[in-house]
Amino acid sequence: MSTDRRVGVWLVGGRGSVATTALTGAAAVAAGLTEPTGMVTMRPPFTEAGMPELGDLVFGGHDVVETPLALRAAKLVDDGVLPHGLPNALGAAIEAAESEQRPGITGHEARTEPRPALGRIVSDLSSFKTRHDLQRLVVVNVSSTEAPVEPHPAHQDPALLMDALDRGLGVLPPSALYALAAIEVGAAFVDFTPSVGARLPAIEALAEAHEVPVAGSDGKTGETFMKSVLAPALGTRNLKVRSWAGYNILGGGDGAALADPERAQSKLDSKGKLLEDILGYPVEAPIRIEDVKDMGEWKTAWDHIVFEGFMGVRMKLQFTWEGCDSTLAAPLLLDLIRLMGLALERGERGPMSSLAFFFKDPVGTSEHALHTQYDMLERWVLQRVVA
Amino acid sequence: MSTDRRVGVWLVGGRGSVATTALTGAAAVAAGLTEPTGMVTMRPPFTEAGMPELGDLVFGGHDVVETPLALRAAKLVDDGVLPHGLPNALGAAIEAAESEQRPGITGHEARTEPRPALGRIVSDLSSFKTRHDLQRLVVVNVSSTEAPVEPHPAHQDPALLMDALDRGLGVLPPSALYALAAIEVGAAFVDFTPSVGARLPAIEALAEAHEVPVAGSDGKTGETFMKSVLAPALGTRNLKVRSWAGYNILGGGDGAALADPERAQSKLDSKGKLLEDILGYPVEAPIRIEDVKDMGEWKTAWDHIVFEGFMGVRMKLQFTWEGCDSTLAAPLLLDLIRLMGLALERGERGPMSSLAFFFKDPVGTSEHALHTQYDMLERWVLQRVVA
Amino acid sequence: MSTDRRVGVWLVGGRGSVATTALTGAAAVAAGLTEPTGMVTMRPPFTEAGMPELGDLVFGGHDVVETPLALRAAKLVDDGVLPHGLPNALGAAIEAAESEQRPGITGHEARTEPRPALGRIVSDLSSFKTRHDLQRLVVVNVSSTEAPVEPHPAHQDPALLMDALDRGLGVLPPSALYALAAIEVGAAFVDFTPSVGARLPAIEALAEAHEVPVAGSDGKTGETFMKSVLAPALGTRNLKVRSWAGYNILGGGDGAALADPERAQSKLDSKGKLLEDILGYPVEAPIRIEDVKDMGEWKTAWDHIVFEGFMGVRMKLQFTWEGCDSTLAAPLLLDLIRLMGLALERGERGPMSSLAFFFKDPVGTSEHALHTQYDMLERWVLQRVVA
Amino acid sequence: MSTDRRVGVWLVGGRGSVATTALTGAAAVAAGLTEPTGMVTMRPPFTEAGMPELGDLVFGGHDVVETPLALRAAKLVDDGVLPHGLPNALGAAIEAAESEQRPGITGHEARTEPRPALGRIVSDLSSFKTRHDLQRLVVVNVSSTEAPVEPHPAHQDPALLMDALDRGLGVLPPSALYALAAIEVGAAFVDFTPSVGARLPAIEALAEAHEVPVAGSDGKTGETFMKSVLAPALGTRNLKVRSWAGYNILGGGDGAALADPERAQSKLDSKGKLLEDILGYPVEAPIRIEDVKDMGEWKTAWDHIVFEGFMGVRMKLQFTWEGCDSTLAAPLLLDLIRLMGLALERGERGPMSSLAFFFKDPVGTSEHALHTQYDMLERWVLQRVVA
Repeated sequence: MSTDRRVGVWLVGGRGSVATTALTGAAAVAAGLTEPTGMVTMRPPFTEAGMPELGDLVFGGHDVVETPLALRAAKLVDDGVLPHGLPNALGAAIEAAESEQRPGITGHEARTEPRPALGRIVSDLSSFKTRHDLQRLVVVNVSSTEAPVEPHPAHQDPALLMDALDRGLGVLPPSALYALAAIEVGAAFVDFTPSVGARLPAIEALAEAHEVPVAGSDGKTGETFMKSVLAPALGTRNLKVRSWAGYNILGGGDGAALADPERAQSKLDSKGKLLEDILGYPVEAPIRIEDVKDMGEWKTAWDHIVFEGFMGVRMKLQFTWEGCDSTLAAPLLLDLIRLMGLALERGERGPMSSLAFFFKDPVGTSEHALHTQYDMLERWVLQRVVA
Repeated sequence: MSTDRRVGVWLVGGRGSVATTALTGAAAVAAGLTEPTGMVTMRPPFTEAGMPELGDLVFGGHDVVETPLALRAAKLVDDGVLPHGLPNALGAAIEAAESEQRPGITGHEARTEPRPALGRIVSDLSSFKTRHDLQRLVVVNVSSTEAPVEPHPAHQDPALLMDALDRGLGVLPPSALYALAAIEVGAAFVDFTPSVGARLPAIEALAEAHEVPVAGSDGKTGETFMKSVLAPALGTRNLKVRSWAGYNILGGGDGAALADPERAQSKLDSKGKLLEDILGYPVEAPIRIEDVKDMGEWKTAWDHIVFEGFMGVRMKLQFTWEGCDSTLAAPLLLDLIRLMGLALERGERGPMSSLAFFFKDPVGTSEHALHTQYDMLERWVLQRVVA
Repeated sequence: MSTDRRVGVWLVGGRGSVATTALTGAAAVAAGLTEPTGMVTMRPPFTEAGMPELGDLVFGGHDVVETPLALRAAKLVDDGVLPHGLPNALGAAIEAAESEQRPGITGHEARTEPRPALGRIVSDLSSFKTRHDLQRLVVVNVSSTEAPVEPHPAHQDPALLMDALDRGLGVLPPSALYALAAIEVGAAFVDFTPSVGARLPAIEALAEAHEVPVAGSDGKTGETFMKSVLAPALGTRNLKVRSWAGYNILGGGDGAALADPERAQSKLDSKGKLLEDILGYPVEAPIRIEDVKDMGEWKTAWDHIVFEGFMGVRMKLQFTWEGCDSTLAAPLLLDLIRLMGLALERGERGPMSSLAFFFKDPVGTSEHALHTQYDMLERWVLQRVVA
Repeated sequence: MSTDRRVGVWLVGGRGSVATTALTGAAAVAAGLTEPTGMVTMRPPFTEAGMPELGDLVFGGHDVVETPLALRAAKLVDDGVLPHGLPNALGAAIEAAESEQRPGITGHEARTEPRPALGRIVSDLSSFKTRHDLQRLVVVNVSSTEAPVEPHPAHQDPALLMDALDRGLGVLPPSALYALAAIEVGAAFVDFTPSVGARLPAIEALAEAHEVPVAGSDGKTGETFMKSVLAPALGTRNLKVRSWAGYNILGGGDGAALADPERAQSKLDSKGKLLEDILGYPVEAPIRIEDVKDMGEWKTAWDHIVFEGFMGVRMKLQFTWEGCDSTLAAPLLLDLIRLMGLALERGERGPMSSLAFFFKDPVGTSEHALHTQYDMLERWVLQRVVA
């Protein structure tokens, strides 16, 4: 087992709000400037599990935009995401991450020149590892949601997939190329978005073969978190959910991206599977995502739930959830990095269903009840410590 | 073990909305006229545990009011609690319960003539058992919430308590006299209200000594149910709850009873203990109950929760819960009756902490997280079946 | 002036929920079985204006569905729209209206055989007038919302329009054919839907020429009513509205109709014009309509309004409006019938901007502030009484 | 007419959040650093009425606390009320106001030594006028809400009142002594709180006699503003309001002050009169105010309104209003100062019912509908300009 506690963190979408909040927050907690509120792995019983410390993370990333991290951080201060003065206090950490940002690959490159694109990512990841002498690397996708990918036979088989890439076929979106590259360099891969990432049989097989763990998909930050809490509770009380309508208004880049109906579809797909999985019967449950630029980095969800009680009496639960997406996502991202650092150390491979707690559409399981997912997480983390 | 599957059910507050809904609902489910929605014990894995069937329950009760059950049922139809036509279809069941209603004891009687009052209850319970040849009896308090009881040394010790009653001291409110009477005739006792009931050391000791199980207190129907679901979820995510204000508007008898600040105190006491127990730190969490006669049998709670996420960013969760209290309470009442029937059969004695799932202020435990309480319930029900 | 106080009422969509609620309600109020709650013209100062009494209305209608009114009324009882027992008490009134229902024209007929379709409507209206010896007739469109109509030069000019119809061109949707027929027989026409109805220059010119009044469009029942109240209030306080997102969930026929994006467009168009007209500056104000079958006849709107106060501080107003559309629409419909009865008596002709109070998208005015619209209404009704 | 456009502004509670926000805001608008959002008098048609400019206001005040204005302003920046950097940019204006703060009189002084207390206020006001050579002075009470005052015969008559003060009787709370002092020095008096201020027959008579205008009471900033908008709208639609429950959570000094049930009573009294005045019938309308320290300068109101529509169908409107009290109050305060400057110039005297728009409990009128109040305001401001 490695004695080097450092872990490399490569963020795809490295200049975005979530990435900037995560790296600033990691530095702030490491420096004792803030509490690790919102991080699950910083509470007992996880604190004793030997995960990497936040101060041991080394950040780099790819992005297709070029906004300097310092500028993004300043913008996040204006939007109430980062405290006034914090970016200045952490100038060195931001500068260090800035120097490790590389141009991301575009959808066009992925479609037309997949091999060179993949090669470039692999090269960037490898040189990052070498430059910092890193034994462990975790690649996390926090870039904009992609449109759903069109099915292709090459998605089913590693050999067919490699062959298709060699022939220049654009069968993979950027997120999947990043996953492939991560696997190739022996890095763990986490998809915090609903994009395809590693979720193709061919890529999952490659992860197994290369002995790297993969986790995803789509970080469970807000409305879906609430669903995974409330639906099991109503279920244990034997109250029948009749309809559950959810409406989300959000601004920022995410709002604009999801205003594109194709991309929104990826999101809605990953949000829609829960209720039936949890409750065991189909529920009329429309979900809408609305781009409201005025919301900036903030997001409000309104959910309207009608349930039936004894003798058919209809009752109602409504909630509004008002949160800042980056603030909710960043600590979970840091949790996942720490957990995947542990997974690498433990030699885990393939889809990590134990991390379902963090995702709207977890790999390897259809368990969506939050408390059960929490038990799964605790079991995985602790059993190995105990052993 | 008894081969008689029948169980006597004696409801204190037997002419109230909850009692009427429960006995009508039991008959309706038994007759196949409605689904047992809202009953926990009618879902797997509880269905196989051998609890008494709803059709095997025999209802009677005490009440200080005299409104006939048929009239109350008609009123509940008007208020949208019972389906149109149902009371007529179940006339025989309502008539049977009507014939087993007895005048309840008043607060004045409890204060001035506790011994005769107790004697009268014991006599009513005994003759009910005899008349129907019942081997098992469950007494449930669903009467109006009492004001908190003034502490007295006799509350600590069975002998002192009996002596005080003999001397005509009014140290016990009616709910506690009902608990005592139940224990004396070997009946299980459940307090679905926040009144004192069996929750005095002297009475709990008597329950142990007489080998009867007691359960309570204060049925967890609405807002507190939500707290016991949401607070643990926020806790596992390491989000810090900063304030949680709850406002409840309700009508009916309950609204009027709780408009009396003294009685409301009992309710607020039993509601206020949860958050700190669950989260592990004190939370600014005012609760208000408002009598709005116009609400009739309905209740709406609005909760405003401020929590802190990463780097101190404040976020918000608000919910409204709109329910009919009797509709929510009645199926849980029937669950408790079935579970206490099982407990009697198993020879359980004293406070039943395994039933914490059902209560705002559970006896014998400070566990308030709903899913953990559910696990406790499942463990208790199933282990005995397995054994 | 006529001495006959009776007024014929012809409802397009005569078997729908709104129509059934309106005619049942008119009979119930006339019989003294219920209060005229929700009717504006039954309050002072309108009560003295000499409008037709509800008992003087004679109902008939067209519909493309064939559900008997008695069945629809029974369904409305189940859905909580009509009181239990009411339809039975008013059997004669329902029967009378039933006998005056005629098959409506379909979209297909309007597109392929407009002349015969128009002829059939005219004939039905004329024979209704004759059969009941009616001097005044008001035709009201309460049928399902149509998709927006494609622009055509014939819409601009009466002669061109008649010529197009003669040539069998399908340039008009059913709602416009009903408007034309009404004008032809000298009936007032009201469009309570966002369909095109009389809102084409050619048809408005014909209304002027035939000296009949027309009113519309799109009854202002719920969310838009709230907008027309809140936006002027925020405006007078000089608070700047930054965004206003509205989400509507509804079931029933309306929900299904508006799930069709084309038809929804008509609705959204008529809802979207208000804020800028009222506030004087553009506002980011998305609106969504969601079909949730489980909602039945009920509708809930959630609106999320962000406004800016002194020194740029952002504040929020959110509301939910939970109503039954038919219950909200029917009394306004009866108001409009009474008002159009008065307008016929007064010889009003063409678009009635004075009735803007009732509509999301009022003809002849861009005034949307409710209290100003109320003043316009009062002025029109009373000036004539005063004179 | 005076050629001096300057107006002295004396704020009772001069070191509080509202006062600090108002004076900072006035300076910021005058300096062109911010828009006058939230100020009614800065919109047409009021802009042409010749009211004093914000840059012409000279600030001073009394307060019983000693927190420097600069410190208070810094705190308001932290709480999101003032923009970052603003207090620094306006250091001179804050410094100028700081040099004109004087120690306020306490409740104890008012009760035990009313004459010297009154004398001290008069002297402070007079020397302020002299020092700055001010021809017009407006005194505004923005201090903490007082408990209701006990009735006393001296409240009815100026001579009796003066006599009582001479005899050292503590019949007036501080707010009334401030009002008296203002009248004595010929200053206009505005009570932005629900305290008694000038609202005693004796003091109103004195205002008439001394020819000074008085205005009040209790600034209509949030929930009551909403009531004065929604209730008239429901009324014009003839919808019957059945119940209206309001719950307010707030922090800051105001939250703590109103946690005192006696003081809260003043507030609730001034809030409770509206609905019946507007609707013309009594409404079950409880209001609660809850101190939640965590809310800081912010306030959230939840209102739950049940109304009845056609044929008795119950429907609901709920809203949450989330605002910052100082941000809402300060621009209205500046409006009132400008309007009272105009009133002084016009020689108005006694209670100003034309300013009802600004108050929960307006002097001299029971008109509570916002749009009618707006018409009254416009009429008063413009008629004089026109004349």
